[in-house]
Amino acid sequence: MASINVGIVGYGNLGRGVELALKQNPDFQLKAIFSRRQPDEVASARGVVHISEIEKYKGDIDVLILCGGSATDLPEQGPQLAAMFNTVDSFDTHAKIPEYFAKVNEVAEKAGTVSVISTGWDPGLFSLNRLLAESVLPEGNDYTFWGKGVSQGHSDAIRRVAGVKNGVQYTIPVEAAVERVRQGENPELSTREKHLRECFVVAEEGADLAKIEHEIKSMPNYFSDYDTTVHFISEEELKANHSAMPHGGMVLRSGRTGENSTQLIEFRLKLDSNPEFTASVLVAYARAAYKLSQAGQSGAKTVFDIPFGLLSPKSPEQLRKELL
Amino acid sequence: MASINVGIVGYGNLGRGVELALKQNPDFQLKAIFSRRQPDEVASARGVVHISEIEKYKGDIDVLILCGGSATDLPEQGPQLAAMFNTVDSFDTHAKIPEYFAKVNEVAEKAGTVSVISTGWDPGLFSLNRLLAESVLPEGNDYTFWGKGVSQGHSDAIRRVAGVKNGVQYTIPVEAAVERVRQGENPELSTREKHLRECFVVAEEGADLAKIEHEIKSMPNYFSDYDTTVHFISEEELKANHSAMPHGGMVLRSGRTGENSTQLIEFRLKLDSNPEFTASVLVAYARAAYKLSQAGQSGAKTVFDIPFGLLSPKSPEQLRKELL
Repeated sequence: MASINVGIVGYGNLGRGVELALKQNPDFQLKAIFSRRQPDEVASARGVVHISEIEKYKGDIDVLILCGGSATDLPEQGPQLAAMFNTVDSFDTHAKIPEYFAKVNEVAEKAGTVSVISTGWDPGLFSLNRLLAESVLPEGNDYTFWGKGVSQGHSDAIRRVAGVKNGVQYTIPVEAAVERVRQGENPELSTREKHLRECFVVAEEGADLAKIEHEIKSMPNYFSDYDTTVHFISEEELKANHSAMPHGGMVLRSGRTGENSTQLIEFRLKLDSNPEFTASVLVAYARAAYKLSQAGQSGAKTVFDIPFGLLSPKSPEQLRKELL
Repeated sequence: MASINVGIVGYGNLGRGVELALKQNPDFQLKAIFSRRQPDEVASARGVVHISEIEKYKGDIDVLILCGGSATDLPEQGPQLAAMFNTVDSFDTHAKIPEYFAKVNEVAEKAGTVSVISTGWDPGLFSLNRLLAESVLPEGNDYTFWGKGVSQGHSDAIRRVAGVKNGVQYTIPVEAAVERVRQGENPELSTREKHLRECFVVAEEGADLAKIEHEIKSMPNYFSDYDTTVHFISEEELKANHSAMPHGGMVLRSGRTGENSTQLIEFRLKLDSNPEFTASVLVAYARAAYKLSQAGQSGAKTVFDIPFGLLSPKSPEQLRKELL
C-alpha cells in the first residue's frame, strides 16, 4: 500500500490522539511530531522535533496534521504552514471560519498546496449532516443537541470562579426535547429546553459553597439560560470519575414531503473520547488532502468539498462493490 | 436562481414523488414526464409525454431523473438515456452495481454526459454512512438494521402463496439487538436476532389459513431464517391500515480508538413515505449531476464521488458561513 508521510503539529490531547489513530491506518507513516516545547521535555516513544525545524521537512512530508487550538495556534500556523505543506486542521471557531478559509486559501492557492480546514465532528461530521439533511428535505427544521459530554469552555468558566480549585462541566441534552423532535413534532425549543448543565466542582478549603454555586448558576452566556446543577466533590473524586473526555450529540432534521409525510434524518455520535475521535476524523481527511493534492488540486477545502470516496484507503471499484 | 430543466422517466410511486419533491426546490423546472403508457391513460396535472418522443428533448433537458425499477427498466434505460442526457437513478440491485456502473460509465464517457447511479437511501445515504464510519473508525464493526417498514419483495413473496389474495410484510429491527450495538457490545448477531418479519394477509374465501401460515413461515430466504408473525385480516382493513409505505432503518458502527475508547456513529432514518424520501434524494443528486456536467465532467458517478456541497442550491461561501 502506498505510504502517506505525515507530520503532527502540536502534541496535546489531539496530537496524541492522531498518533494513536495513525497506528490503525497502515497506509500512513508518521515522519515527525513537531512541538513548541523542547523535544526532551516531551514524553513520547517517537522522535519529537522542535517546530522551528519544520521547514527542513518540506518535500518529505505529504500532509501535516495541525493539532493546535483555534484561539491562537491555528490562525497563525494554518496560513504559515499551508505555504509549505498540505495541511488538515480542526479549526472550530464557527463564526471565524469564512475569514480563516480566505486566509488559508490565498496562501495554499499560491503555494499549490491543499489545506482541509475545520474537520472533526462539529464543525465536520455534524456540518455534513446538516447540509445533507437540508438538501434532501428543504422543508423542515434542524436540531443539534450536544452531549452528554465535557465542555472545555464551560469547565474553564467554572474554574475562573473565586474559591474554585477545579471543576468539570457536562452538557446534557434534554431527552424529552430529543423525543419530541424524533416524533416529528417540529417543536420550537428554547435554550433551557434543549440542554442541561451539570457541574462537578472542587472548592478551596473554607470557601463559601453557596456563593460559588450562585455565581456559577447566574453566569451570563455560560449558565444563566440553563437549568444548572452544581455538585461539590473532592479532588480525588474529580480525578477518579471525571478525567475522561466523553462527548457526542446528534443532528436531527424533521422534514415534510408530498402531501404531509414526516421524514426524519438523525445522525448521532456517542464518544468515549472526544479528542481521539476528532483525531480519527483528521486522519481520514489527511488521506483526502493527499489524494486531492496528487490529483493536482490546490487551495483551502472543507468537508463540503470532499467526496467520501477520498476518505477511504480502498479503490473506487472496491467501494462500489463492498459498500454501495 | 438559475433553473435546472429536468425530465422524469417513469410515473409510478417514485416518479410521482419526484414531481412533488421538485415543487420544494425552486431552482428546478420540470419540463416533461415520460411514460411508456399512452399519455391520455396517465392522470396528472402536467403534460405526460410518451417515452418514444424523448429524443426530441435533447438539449432542452439538463438532467433526466430515472424512476423505473432496477429489475428490468434501469438496466436497459440507464445506458440508453445516458447516451443523450445527464441522468440520475436509484438502481438498487446491490450485487449488480459494478456491472451497471461499467455499462453506464462507458456510454456516458463517450457521450460526455454525467450519470449518477444508485442514489436513494440504500444504496445511497446508508452507503455513505457505512463508508464514512469505516474510514473514521477502521477498527470496529458495522451494523445495518432496516425498518420498521414495508418490504416490497417480501410482500410480493406473500402474495405468490396459494390461497393469498393480498398481503403486506413489515421488516422490524429487533430493539434489543440495536441496544446491544449502541452500548458498544460489538455483538455477533444472527439473521434471526436482527430483524422480525410481520405479515398482514388477506386470504381467499375458504382458503386453509394454517397451511398459508405454514407456507409463509417456512419459505426459504424470505422467512424461514426469521421469527415471522402472520395476521389474517380483511381486505378493507389492509387498505385502511397498511396502504402507506413507511420505512427507515439505521447504520451503526461501533469502533475502538486509542487504548480502549468505544466510539459509536449512528445514522437513522424514520420515513413516513419511502418513495417520497427516495425521490427527494434523487432530486438533490440531480442538482449535483447538473453542476458536475457544468464543470465539464462526464461518466458514471456514485454518491461516493460527489461532495455534499454540490447537493445544495447554496453557494460554497454561504454553506461555509451558515452550515459549517
